[in-house]
Amino acid sequence: MLYDNITVKDGKLFFAGMDTTLLAKKHGTPLYLMDEDRIRGNCRAYRDALKGCACPDSEAVYASKACSFAGIYKMIAEEGLCADVVSPGEIYTAKKAGFPMERAYFQGNNKTDEDIAFAIDCGVGYFVCDNFEELDVLDRIAGEKGVRQKILLRVTPGIDPHTYAEVSTGKVDSKFGVAIETGQAAEAVQKALSKKNLIFEGIHCHVGSMVFDSDVFLRASAVMLGFAAEIKKNLGAEIKILDLGGGYGVKYYPGQGEIDIPQNIKAVAKRVAELSEEYGLKTPSLRLEPGRSIVADAGITLYTVGSVKKITGYKNYVSVDGGMTDNPRYALYESKYTVLTANKADSPCDMTADLVGRCCESGDIIQPGVSFPSSIERGDAVAVLTTGAYNYSMASNYNRVPRPPIVLLRGGSDRVAVRRESLDDLLSNDIV
Amino acid sequence: MLYDNITVKDGKLFFAGMDTTLLAKKHGTPLYLMDEDRIRGNCRAYRDALKGCACPDSEAVYASKACSFAGIYKMIAEEGLCADVVSPGEIYTAKKAGFPMERAYFQGNNKTDEDIAFAIDCGVGYFVCDNFEELDVLDRIAGEKGVRQKILLRVTPGIDPHTYAEVSTGKVDSKFGVAIETGQAAEAVQKALSKKNLIFEGIHCHVGSMVFDSDVFLRASAVMLGFAAEIKKNLGAEIKILDLGGGYGVKYYPGQGEIDIPQNIKAVAKRVAELSEEYGLKTPSLRLEPGRSIVADAGITLYTVGSVKKITGYKNYVSVDGGMTDNPRYALYESKYTVLTANKADSPCDMTADLVGRCCESGDIIQPGVSFPSSIERGDAVAVLTTGAYNYSMASNYNRVPRPPIVLLRGGSDRVAVRRESLDDLLSNDIV
Repeated sequence: MLYDNITVKDGKLFFAGMDTTLLAKKHGTPLYLMDEDRIRGNCRAYRDALKGCACPDSEAVYASKACSFAGIYKMIAEEGLCADVVSPGEIYTAKKAGFPMERAYFQGNNKTDEDIAFAIDCGVGYFVCDNFEELDVLDRIAGEKGVRQKILLRVTPGIDPHTYAEVSTGKVDSKFGVAIETGQAAEAVQKALSKKNLIFEGIHCHVGSMVFDSDVFLRASAVMLGFAAEIKKNLGAEIKILDLGGGYGVKYYPGQGEIDIPQNIKAVAKRVAELSEEYGLKTPSLRLEPGRSIVADAGITLYTVGSVKKITGYKNYVSVDGGMTDNPRYALYESKYTVLTANKADSPCDMTADLVGRCCESGDIIQPGVSFPSSIERGDAVAVLTTGAYNYSMASNYNRVPRPPIVLLRGGSDRVAVRRESLDDLLSNDIV
Repeated sequence: MLYDNITVKDGKLFFAGMDTTLLAKKHGTPLYLMDEDRIRGNCRAYRDALKGCACPDSEAVYASKACSFAGIYKMIAEEGLCADVVSPGEIYTAKKAGFPMERAYFQGNNKTDEDIAFAIDCGVGYFVCDNFEELDVLDRIAGEKGVRQKILLRVTPGIDPHTYAEVSTGKVDSKFGVAIETGQAAEAVQKALSKKNLIFEGIHCHVGSMVFDSDVFLRASAVMLGFAAEIKKNLGAEIKILDLGGGYGVKYYPGQGEIDIPQNIKAVAKRVAELSEEYGLKTPSLRLEPGRSIVADAGITLYTVGSVKKITGYKNYVSVDGGMTDNPRYALYESKYTVLTANKADSPCDMTADLVGRCCESGDIIQPGVSFPSSIERGDAVAVLTTGAYNYSMASNYNRVPRPPIVLLRGGSDRVAVRRESLDDLLSNDIV
């Protein structure tokens, strides 16, 4: 099995030790299941690796855009992680969940005046400033509120992580940050230092997602430390924090790449410490921003089959009661997933079919070319694995389909963390 | 201008006769504006073309997945259109808006038992049955409820409309319907005729979207009438309704293809009547299912600029306060749009930039390679045109961004049809 929280017993798929077919009956489908112990375990792996690393006071910052709901901010607070928030919506959710906002990092390439004021009012610890306009507006609003705001500056190090284009953000040509190569990053630091209501704490980059190559963060570190040295030399300012963003990959299918994350973290921290010494810099505190690698393998999605089509001479289709509304990642990126028939989990898979959703759109494919038992039929339960990241958070109401609930599993019991949307929810803002 | 409801006055973009810069200030951004007169005019164009056509009692069925909210069902009811609904959510919304449900057509390739029971309870006029399983379950549930349910059968005519793959659904290899070519469609008709709680009224196909070629529906008609003749000959049943689905294209950018829809409708109806005579069939009543061509040109989206990045030697980026959350169509299909700077609408466009959204995702592009005035800056208003279809309906809360409101414009006044989502709305189903 792809992960050790997925097992089979008497032909039934078990997740986090629980029978998924019973959970599907109890909560209905489509259904997001999340293994709370796995989320917490993934958090601890980062925390422990950073605690013992060569950079002092280093911390993991959960990139909550991967999966944002109130309950998860409580969990990551309990596990000692910081939170990366990208909008007033994420800030508000974290705050409502009691997250310590001084441990929140507000990211994003387009913060409005209202966003900035709201984030300051909520006591967000750090702004990760993206652009010149933001520095001006943040300084002004912080001043109006009598606050001196800690900031990191997002820069683009010019690293190509060799992952697919949609998730590669560290290159010079990016909507995010300011480029080191063009001199604009140095200019932005100078501007930040000149602002009396901003406290420049360090620099941030994010090179991309689904990183399996062990050298990506090492290369990024080298560029970032080189830039830190330049800042010190030319502007007399030293960085306290080096935030290398997120990006470690997770396994969606057998045979995919793997990376030993704790080991890579230690190697990266060691390199940062060495380079700091080389450049005559105080070793900065490290920040990493895992999102996917905290939640992806903690989630699966359950569906019920509605129809099996065998089109002679063409293709087979297994259609289910969800689709691009709860998981748009194949439609967006042609993302690969592993699919199992939850109530026939030990039947031989002797039929290939596209797993498709219920939306009136031919692009509504969850996964093409899936192996199913040929006995699959209406009423069977299908599980898509590794859906904990960028599924619930990207879900829509396309076709006016309500979004599924999130049910957390822990120690053999299940509890609803996000309720299923009702038909009335869909209409709650309509004025008839 | 792309459409005559878009004009410029004193450098300001006007839509449906109203100053968009004032509307942006009043309602905030991002903001969906919809020209109600245009929606109604588009409805009437279909209705009038079908009223005078060669097929008796023909009707237009609004494919509400293109843009579904309570107010629009009221409008199309008033304009005399039927409604195509694809989920309990759309059925419930239409019903709440007072839509006459006997004029609703329930589509979809994956109707659950609960969906079927709900639709019958709501008095949906027609089921467009997609597969064998649905025929069995619908017959059973209709019987339990003491109802005889009118149905159409969705078939795939094997027509390739030469549009892009994601929106081409009429080919034999499709998740939708049953194929004529393989003999499965005839088998399905036979099954439908054998069900005592189903009333077989006709056949349905949908060949694809963004159709500009005038021969597409003519070709589809020929295949469908041939199949109708086969049904009559082999099964002794005659179709009353021929539903050719939707698909007429709309103009997203200057120079794009155009099609005279009313003229094409008349030509298609004439062909259907001729073929019916040729095959010795009673001329069926026609159904067409426009979605995009009812609402697309009735909508624009307004944004506020947050940052303008000029990356020397690379590219420029104009970022705004919305993005793939309110318009995922570039991310999904690389869809083209026309973009204007609403408060500098007559300034010369001397700068090229990608128009990007606020999401923490490099794929969050609304439109690449847009021409802007080089004076564009934070606070300016940007309008994306022709966003009435598949924008609001596909919107998500990715990054926990609230969905924009829909404001209807009519006769120089504006009214909110769907309120802006609040931060509390985002949390309404969270259990902390």
